[in-house]
Amino acid sequence: MTKEVSSNRSFGGWQKVFEHESEECKCPMKFGIFFPPQAESKKCPVVYYLSGLTCTEQNFISKSGVQRSAAKHGLIIVAPDTSPRGCNIEGEDDSYDFGSGAGFYVDATEEKWKTNYRMYSYVTKELPNVINKEFESQVEPNKMSVFGHSMGGHGALVCALKNPGKYKSVSAFAPITNPTQCPWGQKALSGYLGKDSDSHKEYDSCLLIKKYQGPKLDILVDQGTKDQFLHELLPEHLVRACGDAGMTLNLRNQEGYDHSYYFISTFMDDHIAHHAKYLNL
Amino acid sequence: MTKEVSSNRSFGGWQKVFEHESEECKCPMKFGIFFPPQAESKKCPVVYYLSGLTCTEQNFISKSGVQRSAAKHGLIIVAPDTSPRGCNIEGEDDSYDFGSGAGFYVDATEEKWKTNYRMYSYVTKELPNVINKEFESQVEPNKMSVFGHSMGGHGALVCALKNPGKYKSVSAFAPITNPTQCPWGQKALSGYLGKDSDSHKEYDSCLLIKKYQGPKLDILVDQGTKDQFLHELLPEHLVRACGDAGMTLNLRNQEGYDHSYYFISTFMDDHIAHHAKYLNL
Repeated sequence: MTKEVSSNRSFGGWQKVFEHESEECKCPMKFGIFFPPQAESKKCPVVYYLSGLTCTEQNFISKSGVQRSAAKHGLIIVAPDTSPRGCNIEGEDDSYDFGSGAGFYVDATEEKWKTNYRMYSYVTKELPNVINKEFESQVEPNKMSVFGHSMGGHGALVCALKNPGKYKSVSAFAPITNPTQCPWGQKALSGYLGKDSDSHKEYDSCLLIKKYQGPKLDILVDQGTKDQFLHELLPEHLVRACGDAGMTLNLRNQEGYDHSYYFISTFMDDHIAHHAKYLNL
Repeated sequence: MTKEVSSNRSFGGWQKVFEHESEECKCPMKFGIFFPPQAESKKCPVVYYLSGLTCTEQNFISKSGVQRSAAKHGLIIVAPDTSPRGCNIEGEDDSYDFGSGAGFYVDATEEKWKTNYRMYSYVTKELPNVINKEFESQVEPNKMSVFGHSMGGHGALVCALKNPGKYKSVSAFAPITNPTQCPWGQKALSGYLGKDSDSHKEYDSCLLIKKYQGPKLDILVDQGTKDQFLHELLPEHLVRACGDAGMTLNLRNQEGYDHSYYFISTFMDDHIAHHAKYLNL
């Protein structure tokens, strides 16, 4: 059962936040959900947005301006929190880039984390099931897409690449593209999956692209040229991986933009239009 | 001298925050300023936005989505903090609706507050002077407008009504219209100006409208019908005052909207278009 935490009228629709007991994460989890005006009279596709390090379900819904575009195109937008919280795991709140606010969209296998830190299964399976069941009259269950920012851009790409056909489209703002090769990724993958484990490769977009077989993916990525975290994001690795694999990538270098929500909101319309193109067929 | 605190590329322009030593407030004051892309090649009009209770200069610039509309219409947007801060006045941080974050856009006369709490003079005189001087090559100094939310909607109306001709247009989201008649207003006016002082009337829009003489003011106000603070805002008093005085008021009751930034962002485009109509003549 989901519990409504807040509800605000927005662009003719409703921006709501719900909380539910997550079976995957074994703790209460919150998510934002925007219902466009169209959802009052028909079932609408759902776009999942995965947020970056340190974010809760609030950052995206209050700062991105997504509601405007979503209302225009008739899309429901679901934005979960970025990790389990309050699980009383030693050290869970010690770092901004590991533990709380930094679930990294993996299913942990390390003893300390494996009970709660199952964000991959949470966002790809449990959450869509909850959404499709609880909001049955508003949601078109077989039409979903995914996008995200930074750690969540990594999450979005991994979700799409590991589940061919599940998502109609994918896009990302400044994603971590090659986590086995950057400090944030190495810390998170080692911490959740064990040091030097082969399973790291299962959560690395640049490596997953090599073996992807499925419907054509038309990936849209925006990357600011003044992003302070380019050494973590490695957009040139994504370009190379897609080129080698013959995968369609529209990576747009946005001159002068940084890693913030000012960057995200500027290009939000383009991302929502990209998803609408595939979801509103 | 102003000091740049932050700078983010946004919608082809720049969202910046500056800090300066305010002569009126006798303390450092911050303000947000958005430069649209047009400001790189020509002087642009300036719209001042006054925020509501508890806000800093951050709330509006991160949540309202104003940059998108401002970039479209070529308007600079300036959004100051809502009060002096850190002045070591006894009790300045005790209430959400008085002192820090609650300057109420008046010039205080009570002993304890009168040295610092001069937000009326700050936003109508000092801040425009700073903007016009520091950003001389981007700003068209004689074209300015004002709008705001809640306490800041009150501030915007008062600024326009007390300075005929200074602002080319005025608008407000859910303004406090009649502060001498509501709890927030009575507390603030009594606290800053003294109990039962005649000067309260000088900061009450409904009373100022009666004696306004100047260029025609075409006031746009949006008011959510589910606003939790209707008893503080008293929109029906504004309708009556404007009707009695023959002043043009377009008050739009927005069905189901509350007092939040979800409400403000939904109608931001209309307000910016309203100001652009008068500023881009």
